[in-house]
Amino acid sequence: MWGRRGRHVTGALRRGQTSRAHLSRARVRCAILRTMKKPAKKNALYAQSGGVSAVINASACGVIETAKRHGKHIGKLYAGRDGIIGALTENLIDVSRESAATIRALKHTPAGAFGSARFKLKGLDQNRAEYERLIEVFRAHDIGYFFYNGGNDSMDTALKVSQIGATLGYPIICVGVPKTVDNDLPHTDCCPGFGSVAKYIAVSTLEAGLDVASMARTSTKVFVLEVMGRHAGWIAAAGGLAGKSPKEPPHIILFPELPFVREEFLARVKHSVTEYGYCVVVVSEGAAYADGKFVADAGTQDAFGHTQLGGVAPVIANMIREAHGYKYHWAVADYLQRAARHIASRVDVEQAYAVGKAAVELAVQGVNAVMPTIVRRSSRPYKWTIGHVPLSEVANVEKKLPRSFITADGFGITAACRRYLEPLIEGESPPPYKHGVPQYVRIRAVPVRRKLKTEFKL
Amino acid sequence: MWGRRGRHVTGALRRGQTSRAHLSRARVRCAILRTMKKPAKKNALYAQSGGVSAVINASACGVIETAKRHGKHIGKLYAGRDGIIGALTENLIDVSRESAATIRALKHTPAGAFGSARFKLKGLDQNRAEYERLIEVFRAHDIGYFFYNGGNDSMDTALKVSQIGATLGYPIICVGVPKTVDNDLPHTDCCPGFGSVAKYIAVSTLEAGLDVASMARTSTKVFVLEVMGRHAGWIAAAGGLAGKSPKEPPHIILFPELPFVREEFLARVKHSVTEYGYCVVVVSEGAAYADGKFVADAGTQDAFGHTQLGGVAPVIANMIREAHGYKYHWAVADYLQRAARHIASRVDVEQAYAVGKAAVELAVQGVNAVMPTIVRRSSRPYKWTIGHVPLSEVANVEKKLPRSFITADGFGITAACRRYLEPLIEGESPPPYKHGVPQYVRIRAVPVRRKLKTEFKL
Repeated sequence: MWGRRGRHVTGALRRGQTSRAHLSRARVRCAILRTMKKPAKKNALYAQSGGVSAVINASACGVIETAKRHGKHIGKLYAGRDGIIGALTENLIDVSRESAATIRALKHTPAGAFGSARFKLKGLDQNRAEYERLIEVFRAHDIGYFFYNGGNDSMDTALKVSQIGATLGYPIICVGVPKTVDNDLPHTDCCPGFGSVAKYIAVSTLEAGLDVASMARTSTKVFVLEVMGRHAGWIAAAGGLAGKSPKEPPHIILFPELPFVREEFLARVKHSVTEYGYCVVVVSEGAAYADGKFVADAGTQDAFGHTQLGGVAPVIANMIREAHGYKYHWAVADYLQRAARHIASRVDVEQAYAVGKAAVELAVQGVNAVMPTIVRRSSRPYKWTIGHVPLSEVANVEKKLPRSFITADGFGITAACRRYLEPLIEGESPPPYKHGVPQYVRIRAVPVRRKLKTEFKL
Repeated sequence: MWGRRGRHVTGALRRGQTSRAHLSRARVRCAILRTMKKPAKKNALYAQSGGVSAVINASACGVIETAKRHGKHIGKLYAGRDGIIGALTENLIDVSRESAATIRALKHTPAGAFGSARFKLKGLDQNRAEYERLIEVFRAHDIGYFFYNGGNDSMDTALKVSQIGATLGYPIICVGVPKTVDNDLPHTDCCPGFGSVAKYIAVSTLEAGLDVASMARTSTKVFVLEVMGRHAGWIAAAGGLAGKSPKEPPHIILFPELPFVREEFLARVKHSVTEYGYCVVVVSEGAAYADGKFVADAGTQDAFGHTQLGGVAPVIANMIREAHGYKYHWAVADYLQRAARHIASRVDVEQAYAVGKAAVELAVQGVNAVMPTIVRRSSRPYKWTIGHVPLSEVANVEKKLPRSFITADGFGITAACRRYLEPLIEGESPPPYKHGVPQYVRIRAVPVRRKLKTEFKL
């Protein structure tokens, strides 16, 4: 599942090349079928999609800097303002109007510099108008390359766009650029964006754990940290990197992959407090009972009788108070975790850049409908390279945490999981600071002059 | 209030000296009165107290390394396990059994390495037994110096202990070492611990703000970050360092010093979303209505009818949804903010060390019942030195955010506030990392052999 170990390869991708060694013969055939004749010089469009991350702009940087080096194939590079919405409404940003320094600074700037959107194209048969509009905009701006930077849903949209050559007769090369903090894209060892969240959660769990440990005698005995990952427990698992023995935090991890059993959980909390004096819990926002009901939906009501203010952490903490009376604290990291560029993983930043670079290199070779992947060659020492996979194999598939990564009791991570996760949070890549805060860049965002008279209503 | 600007002085304290230039004549007289004859060689006790911070161990490091250099006055240095509780129960840690490398590493390790406690000594007339027990333990271990590292309540305890020479005839020199993330101790320009929380909140607000800005078109429009500081708005104010213009996050800060007015707040949220496309709110956990009722106490009930799961952020966020229907997210940083040594302010680390060092230097000069202070000499460039103040002037006094630091509309910070805060988050002081996580140290905590036969029940 995590790619084969084997011959030593460098993490860096050689210019104009992608490693396909990892692809099965079937996939190579598939890729060849998608390989069109070398395209004429065309403009390119880059768009960010879905929830942003600490390193999605590093991928943008990879796309932009690499596109500049391929002037033989790529003319102007535009970016959609607010992702695909910018493409549909002809709100394009002229990337060439940004300085080289600004583009370089994207590598250390979190969130989506060009704006991102939660917007999934429907199927061609359901909303043909959207596709026709896209083609209208593409044609008006002579766009022949489309780079779509996102997660599962976005790869589905990218796949649909990649097919408009065949379905609607407009030739386009569309390459997906993987991005998701949830780490749930298949066929890639990991997803850019995840390593940095994982590092944030591991470090935060370690730090808060020390805090609780030092005061448990007379104060807080239970600390609950809620983390992202509604359907997959990768981020929750990363909390496990904070400690190495059962007595070190986190003492309990609650994964969305396993049903939450209240009594088992409460017994475990009691055991931890009794044995170690305190208990640190990392809980996925997606923790759910066997019947699928989220633990967060605990019937919490506000003064107006409306259900759920949200947050599984307070529900869990309160459950513990009810049962055991322990003093508790809880935290909900929410966007702080995925925006935390200040504690980004260096490996993650490098991989985010590399998939952006590879996307352009694939495109100028005429490879359509693929997504670059991270291929793990070995874990210790960590060696990785870039491969690629057809979008059709990625779209709408979710990769969950395998059972073998969770301890038998369901509350921790195994050695195999640690071996998988550890390299992904390796290394630091601090941004430059001024007056105590990181110097994140804002783009000028010079709009491209509109060429169409028609407006498009979303 | 923030000390006078003036002549250039170095931030570092010269060995064996403290600047008293800032002290009024009255205080100098007071300090002299407290100056006893140079004490004979005695052992010393160090204890951590109250909520821990990212840099309280840096103060411990300052105390320990300086005590070692004063072997003429200080024999053994012990630490109370779990603070004053360790002193009362004769659970002492032999600090000399820790390696120099471990002590050095305390400077980059968050939380309370020796254990901290929320335990306030009652008045002598209310619980004489506690004081008699302290003296029993002090006498058994020949302790003549007591360094108590904490906030308001702890300085009150330190004051009481400093008086047992006069009240109970046991000679002791007690020096408080300031520590509180709340920044609410009087007579010191700032409190060690605060600068690092301030930096964490400023950086987190900046990062999450970029996240929300990039997705507001189709997703979250309002983000609420709850921060610590139940009675004083210093930490909330630090969120204001994330942006410099009204259109940059945070758009709204809610301080505990000003009454929360629902309609004004909601109008301001709407204005921000209308003008800037989104709204980032930093709210103090202590935000309260004019009648003193905490905003967090919003009548929230769980399935069992119990009130309040806690957290003002979800209450605020829900209020906004009710009124405007905006999609929202919220975060509660809780212990993450005060334990975040990975993003500590270098100034804060240096000041934490300096007050620990100064405490020992004052003590070996025979100065009793004082607390070292941070004295600001100038803001731009930032110059500070160390002073000291009688414990009697510090104990149980809370320094709140002055009105002049809050904008007229009540939702932001003024230029004066920025000038005060900015130097305190200046500089980074990253811990060493291994396998992606900080290498925080744990002490060996070798117990001192007990000499008393009696147990003490807390």
